[in-house]
Amino acid sequence: MAIQLYDFWRSNAAFRVRVALELKRMPFEAIEIDLLAGRQFDPAYAEVNPELVVPTLVHNGDRFSQSLAIIEYLDHLQPDPRLIPLDPRERAYAQSLALVSIADSHPLTAPRVRKHLGAAFDADAATVEAWCRTWTSEGLAAYERLLAKRPAAPFALGAAPTIADICIAGQIVLAELYDAKLTPFPNVIALGEQCFGLAAFAEAHPYRQRGYAIQH
Amino acid sequence: MAIQLYDFWRSNAAFRVRVALELKRMPFEAIEIDLLAGRQFDPAYAEVNPELVVPTLVHNGDRFSQSLAIIEYLDHLQPDPRLIPLDPRERAYAQSLALVSIADSHPLTAPRVRKHLGAAFDADAATVEAWCRTWTSEGLAAYERLLAKRPAAPFALGAAPTIADICIAGQIVLAELYDAKLTPFPNVIALGEQCFGLAAFAEAHPYRQRGYAIQH
Repeated sequence: MAIQLYDFWRSNAAFRVRVALELKRMPFEAIEIDLLAGRQFDPAYAEVNPELVVPTLVHNGDRFSQSLAIIEYLDHLQPDPRLIPLDPRERAYAQSLALVSIADSHPLTAPRVRKHLGAAFDADAATVEAWCRTWTSEGLAAYERLLAKRPAAPFALGAAPTIADICIAGQIVLAELYDAKLTPFPNVIALGEQCFGLAAFAEAHPYRQRGYAIQH
Repeated sequence: MAIQLYDFWRSNAAFRVRVALELKRMPFEAIEIDLLAGRQFDPAYAEVNPELVVPTLVHNGDRFSQSLAIIEYLDHLQPDPRLIPLDPRERAYAQSLALVSIADSHPLTAPRVRKHLGAAFDADAATVEAWCRTWTSEGLAAYERLLAKRPAAPFALGAAPTIADICIAGQIVLAELYDAKLTPFPNVIALGEQCFGLAAFAEAHPYRQRGYAIQH
C-alpha cells in the first residue's frame, strides 16, 4: 500500500493529512511542494493537481485532493482508528466542527490570499499578519463557543481523536504562525493539550518537518 | 419527518442545501436569517448555531450546520437520489470537487469578509465587488481545469447530479452575483446548463427566493 503525499511544512491542510496518516500508522513518502516559492504553480504539478494546491495524496496511481476528502478515503483504506464516526449524527457533528477551520477560517489565510492583499491593497507584511490573526482568532472563537456548548471529553467527540480534533489542532497551529492569542479560548487550549500530547499530532506539526528546518 | 432550514436567499451554502432538499423532494420550512441585516449575530440565533452562520438544518430537534455535513446527513435520511456516491474513489472525487467552492473560493466572499475589507482597507463597494469577482473567477478557473481533465457526462460524476454539481452550480450563482465572466469556462457553462435545466436547481436559485423578491 504505497502512499505518496505532496506536502509542505507550512500547509495547514497538509498538517491535517499528516496527523491522519500518523494516527493510522500508515507509512508515506512526502514530496515537498514549496508553496512559499510558488512551486504549486509549476506546469508539472498542474498535472498532479489541477487545483494547484497541496496536499495531494497518491495511492495506487489514484490522486486525491482536499484534506477532508483524503481523510475520509484513508478511513476506507485503514479504518483503525476511524477519524470520521459512522453514526450519522456524530458524523455530521465531527464534519461540521472540521469545516469551521476548513471552510470558514483557514481559507482566508492561504498563500494566494496573503499575496493578493499586497497586490490589491498595498498591504505590508504587518498588515497581512494582522489580517491572518483576525481570521484565525475568529475561527478559534467559533470553536470556543462550540466546545462550551458540548465540552470535549477529552476529545471533541469523546474518548479518541477525530477529524474534528485534527482541524481544531490545525487552528491552534495557525494561531502559533500568526501570533494569535489563545488565552480567551480555554476549551480550545485544553483540547490542544490533549492533541499535542499524542505523538501523531506532535510529529505532524509544521516545525517538526524537514522543510521547516531547512528554511529556518 | 419535519425539517426546518435556517436560510437566506443570498447564502451560497444555503443554496446548496436547498438544491439537495429539492432533488430529494424533502419538504422543509424555511426560516429566514437576514445576513445583510446581521441577524446571524442575534443572541437567539447563537443558541441555534454557535458559529453564527447559515444554513442550519433542524431535524427531530437535532441541529446540523455546514452544507457538506448537512447534505451527507440528508443522504442518510433520504438516500434517493444519493448526492455523495458510495464508491470510495468516486466519493472522494465528488467531495474534492465540492470543496473547491466550499473550502477555497466561496469563503473569501462571505458577508463578514466583505465587511472587514471596508473596515481594514477602506475598501469601497466597487473594490469589494472586484475582490469577490477575483476569487469567484479563481474558483471557476479551477473547476474548468478539473472538468477539462475529466469531462462531465453530462454531470460531473456521470448520469445524475451530485454534491459536485451542486457546488459548481453555486459557483455559477456567485458569478452572477459578482458579475464574473463565464465565457472563459466552457465546461463550467455546459455543466451549469445541465444543472439549471432541472427544476430542483432552478427553484433553489437565490433570485427565486421570497426574501429576494421582498428586498428587490
